[in-house]
Amino acid sequence: MMQQVYFHQDSRRGPHGTYNWLVDEVKELGEALEGNNIGALEDEFADVIAWVASLANILDVDLEKAALSKYRGKCPKCGETTCQCAPVE
Amino acid sequence: MMQQVYFHQDSRRGPHGTYNWLVDEVKELGEALEGNNIGALEDEFADVIAWVASLANILDVDLEKAALSKYRGKCPKCGETTCQCAPVE
Repeated sequence: MMQQVYFHQDSRRGPHGTYNWLVDEVKELGEALEGNNIGALEDEFADVIAWVASLANILDVDLEKAALSKYRGKCPKCGETTCQCAPVE
Repeated sequence: MMQQVYFHQDSRRGPHGTYNWLVDEVKELGEALEGNNIGALEDEFADVIAWVASLANILDVDLEKAALSKYRGKCPKCGETTCQCAPVE
C-alpha cells in the first residue's frame, strides 16, 4: 500500500534520507508519549509505521515476511509462546 | 501476536522503558543500513516492528487500525493514491 502511494518519492530520496525521517518520527512518538492525547499518539504510531514501510520498500525488504519469520507467535530467544526470558528493563 | 508473547514483560517495563528499546533498535537498523547484509537488515526491521508493536500494546493502541485510518491507500496530505505532494528530502 505505501509502495503505491510513496515509492516514486521514497526511491528518489534514497535510504539514508528516508531513515532520517523515520528517526524524526520516532522522536515525535516519544513526545506524544508525554502527552495525554490518544489521537495524537495513534497519529504518531501511524507515521512511524509509514516510514518503516517506506524504508523497507526502498530496500526491497518484505516487512511482514521479515517480522513473521523472526517472531511467528513465539520469542526467537527462548522459543516459548509466552516469553520466559529474563525481563529486560 | 506480540501481545501474547511479550505483554507480561512489556507492561511491567512500562512505556518509557519500552520506548527506549525501540530507539535502540532504530539505531541498530541505521547501522544495518551501512552494511551489505540483507539478512541482518531484515532482522533489524523485524526488531523495530516488534518494539513498535510492544509499545502500542502497552498503550492499548491498535497499530493496524491507526496506520490504516491515516494511510488507507492514499496520502493523508494530498489525498491522492500516488502522492502528488512536493517531495521531502
